Amino acid sequence: MNRFIFFFLFFTPIQLVFAQNHDPLPSWNGGDAKNNIIQYVQAITDSKHPDYIKVEDRIAAFDNDGTLWSENPFYFQLFFAIDRIKTLAPQHPEWKTTQPFKAVLENDQKALLASGKEGLLKLVMASHTGMTDEEFDAIVIEWINTAQHPRFNRPFKELVYQPMLELLAYLRANQFKTFVVSGGGIDFMRPWASEVYGIPSEQIIGSSIVVKYKEGNIIRQPKLNFIDDKEGKPVAIHYHIGKRPIAAFGNSDGDLAMMQYTDANKNKTFKMYIHHTDSKREWAYDRQSHVGALNKGLDYAKEHNWNIVDMKSDWKFVFPFELNALKLK
Amino acid sequence: MNRFIFFFLFFTPIQLVFAQNHDPLPSWNGGDAKNNIIQYVQAITDSKHPDYIKVEDRIAAFDNDGTLWSENPFYFQLFFAIDRIKTLAPQHPEWKTTQPFKAVLENDQKALLASGKEGLLKLVMASHTGMTDEEFDAIVIEWINTAQHPRFNRPFKELVYQPMLELLAYLRANQFKTFVVSGGGIDFMRPWASEVYGIPSEQIIGSSIVVKYKEGNIIRQPKLNFIDDKEGKPVAIHYHIGKRPIAAFGNSDGDLAMMQYTDANKNKTFKMYIHHTDSKREWAYDRQSHVGALNKGLDYAKEHNWNIVDMKSDWKFVFPFELNALKLK
Repeated sequence: MNRFIFFFLFFTPIQLVFAQNHDPLPSWNGGDAKNNIIQYVQAITDSKHPDYIKVEDRIAAFDNDGTLWSENPFYFQLFFAIDRIKTLAPQHPEWKTTQPFKAVLENDQKALLASGKEGLLKLVMASHTGMTDEEFDAIVIEWINTAQHPRFNRPFKELVYQPMLELLAYLRANQFKTFVVSGGGIDFMRPWASEVYGIPSEQIIGSSIVVKYKEGNIIRQPKLNFIDDKEGKPVAIHYHIGKRPIAAFGNSDGDLAMMQYTDANKNKTFKMYIHHTDSKREWAYDRQSHVGALNKGLDYAKEHNWNIVDMKSDWKFVFPFELNALKLK
Repeated sequence: MNRFIFFFLFFTPIQLVFAQNHDPLPSWNGGDAKNNIIQYVQAITDSKHPDYIKVEDRIAAFDNDGTLWSENPFYFQLFFAIDRIKTLAPQHPEWKTTQPFKAVLENDQKALLASGKEGLLKLVMASHTGMTDEEFDAIVIEWINTAQHPRFNRPFKELVYQPMLELLAYLRANQFKTFVVSGGGIDFMRPWASEVYGIPSEQIIGSSIVVKYKEGNIIRQPKLNFIDDKEGKPVAIHYHIGKRPIAAFGNSDGDLAMMQYTDANKNKTFKMYIHHTDSKREWAYDRQSHVGALNKGLDYAKEHNWNIVDMKSDWKFVFPFELNALKLK
């Protein structure tokens, strides 16, 4: 073998040589959704293309609940709050007779839902505050590694979407910075989402409670600081990222403002809604859902020709464990 | 020449070959400050060293005013506010008779300082708000590229510290993520600091005003959102970074909490104060200064054996233009 060729083969990264034959999104069926993503990424990363976008402006924003992982029968963070309330109950005998704690301890879902947003907020405050940030991290990590989803009997962090993990990796391989911009708690996500999504903690943005600095530590206070939902999402993007995204991915009306904000970027943009249409492998819900309702956003996306993923037909696999099960066969 | 050697020379990055002979901090004189930095970085990046720190935990936080660029005769952002007030004055005839605007328009520094923090806040609100974020970016960029510092007759962005630019680059070459954590305005810094310091916008953290999302745009409101100073710095680090830094660099009492927060990291840490001791090349000030006072911090640093840079003796050059002037000779 010619030594030049030998060295070329030896030192050229395999990915580069085979890039054109390699499917970057193997869990996506080959419909419009997949084709549009790939066409968009190829256009904006090609320095000779009129839609080329510089590396430093390749910002992609992803909602979390319902976009990167499931959100049924209710937001997973609420499972965490409930488990935590049960753990703390022996230290709070008064909870036996006070709502919404009573409802949690008696597994009374009806009373729990009847307590409304105010009730849920009370649960979050009682379960998420009063410790240092590092103590809270440890509590979240313990929970995420042990608690199981009641339908799938698997850790919650296994209920992430395989096609979206591939999409995150594909965008990063094309020098995008990927951000999570979620209504969920920033401190609930960061301890595990960094590893699961491959996103560093400063690129994970969410709702937050007030914290106070005291003698070397950050202490979590029982007071809301910021709600990262609806019009709050562009505001959080402004503070945390300081740049308008070029691509935004969501699944609910809570993501519409973030996607419209992205849409108004002067660069070529990409907006994609995940439409939950698969009651068999995941869940099917949209306009009337009590979590992740997609109503106004669905109409807006259709009118403006945004991408809408039909989970049932566009995704070959939903969860990583489906793939793993296949490999074991 | 043997073809193997030829290829080795041709394809091996020069930096790697000469890394050991290359001085990463050429504008630092070879005293304790420089030696301690290099020893620290070598220890924590050596996977066989007991103080080794994983790449994802290599977070370095830098104050801006007085740490990365000068802050005399007063914070450069105040020069910006003053210039902007003068530009806007024709649309505000009432300013001719209202303080602190009157003081600005009459160049009455005494009356301006007498208006106190409240007066300065009024100037910032009048000059920094009422537009979209993108309009404000354009105003800042125009100013930073044209306005000149009265002592040096050079654009303000040339008054950054050459030794600190080298330090930022050296840390990044060792896989640190470098963050700015400044009392200055986050939106005043981001438009130029990204390029000047080589730090992406999401890694630039500062004080902020309230913003509102409206019809695709972020609108700047005349209300303070967050003061990123003193105990605010660890709080901002918590929200923006979500990790305790391992290294912190400051120059004033406003940085002490951030440095103590860093000091309490379980990993091996590095804390460094820049002490302004050079009235000839820059300014000399510490305990009694009206900007960047270093009093409690100086005592604390000495007691706890933190690094203190003596600008006069530790820095071969202060500003990049000194180096450039030398090259031209």
